[in-house]
Amino acid sequence: MSSYYDYINLDRPALLALLEEKMDKQRYEHVLRVEATGLELARQYGESQVKTSIACLLHDAMKNESDESSRQTIISTNLPLNLLDYGNAIWHGPLAAVFANKQLDLSDEDILNAIANHTYGSDHMSVLEQIVFVADYIEPERDFPAAQKARLIARKNLLAAVGYISQQTLLHLVGKRQRIYPQSFYTYNAYTTQLGEEWDD
Amino acid sequence: MSSYYDYINLDRPALLALLEEKMDKQRYEHVLRVEATGLELARQYGESQVKTSIACLLHDAMKNESDESSRQTIISTNLPLNLLDYGNAIWHGPLAAVFANKQLDLSDEDILNAIANHTYGSDHMSVLEQIVFVADYIEPERDFPAAQKARLIARKNLLAAVGYISQQTLLHLVGKRQRIYPQSFYTYNAYTTQLGEEWDD
Repeated sequence: MSSYYDYINLDRPALLALLEEKMDKQRYEHVLRVEATGLELARQYGESQVKTSIACLLHDAMKNESDESSRQTIISTNLPLNLLDYGNAIWHGPLAAVFANKQLDLSDEDILNAIANHTYGSDHMSVLEQIVFVADYIEPERDFPAAQKARLIARKNLLAAVGYISQQTLLHLVGKRQRIYPQSFYTYNAYTTQLGEEWDD
Repeated sequence: MSSYYDYINLDRPALLALLEEKMDKQRYEHVLRVEATGLELARQYGESQVKTSIACLLHDAMKNESDESSRQTIISTNLPLNLLDYGNAIWHGPLAAVFANKQLDLSDEDILNAIANHTYGSDHMSVLEQIVFVADYIEPERDFPAAQKARLIARKNLLAAVGYISQQTLLHLVGKRQRIYPQSFYTYNAYTTQLGEEWDD
C-alpha cells in the first residue's frame, strides 16, 4: 500500500483540513464527491487509489483564488501566457498543479497532469487524467442529462466517456458563443471518435 | 473598371467554360449562385466586383478532384501536411488556390486567401474572405434554418454573419462527432463574439 507521504508532505486528514480552509463549503463537498467518484473509477480501471485521491482532492484547490493573484502566479511561474486570455474556469487547473508542486512537494508528473488538465484534457490522457476529467463531470450532484449519460458511458468505457464529455462541453460552450481554450478543441479531436455509435441518441 | 485579365489569364466566358468542364452541373450552378450572392455582398460592403467574381467562381474548382490526386498535390506543392488528416471537404479550398495560381496565373494574395480559406476561415479575414465564406453558406438554395438566419444577419453586419456561420458549422460538426480542422476552431474563437445578443434565439 502506498501512502499520501509517498507523494505529498501531508497525510489525508491534514490535506482535508487545508482544503477546507482554502475553499467554501459547497466546493469542498464537491471535491469530496469527485474523490469518491474517482476512487470508484480507479477500482474499475486499475488506477492507484492514493494517486487518484490526491489528484481529485487537489483539482479545485485554487478555484477560489482571486483573478489578480492568479494572473500574477501565471506570470511568475512561467505557465503558458495564453491562459491570461481565458478566465478562472480554465486557469484554476494549472494553478492547482503549481500549488501542489510548490506547497505540498508533489512531483509525480501523472498526478500533476491530472490536476492541471482536469478541465480541458490533453492529447494523450493517462488513465489518471481520464479519471479526474470524468469524475468532475459525473459526480453524484451533477444531474443534467449529459452528466447522466456520461455516468452510464463511464461504467462501460472510460475513453468513450472522455470523448462524450469533451463533445458535450464544446456543444454547451459553443452554443453560448464562448471562446474556447484551444486544448479543449484538441481533446475533442483526439477522443470524440472513441465514442461508438451505440451511444447515439 | 478592372477586368478579369488584371488578375487571371482568362476572360469571364473562358473561365466559365473551364469550370463547367471541371465539375458536375449541380456544383457549377452552386458556383454561379455563390458568385451572384457574393456580388450582392460586395456591393453592400464595398468590395471589388471583379475580385469577388473570380474568388467566388473559383472557390470549388478542385472539389471534384480525386482524393489520390489531391493528396499528391498537397505534398508536391508544400501545402500544410495536416490537410492530409482531413478530407476533400477541407482541402479543396487550398487546392483551388493552388490551381488558380499555377494554371490561371492568379497572384493576388487577397483573392488566393479568399479561395483557400472559404471553408474554415482565418484569424484575420479580409472583406473578400468574409464575402466568399458567407456567400457559400447563404446562396439561395441553402434553405436550412441556420442559412436563413445567416442571410438576415449578413444584410446587417458581415462580420456578425462570419461569427454566426462559424458557430453553426461547429455545432453541426461537433454534434456529429466529426474531427474539426483546427482553423475552424480558431475562426470561431476570433469571430463568435462579433455576433451581438440581438441575434440570440
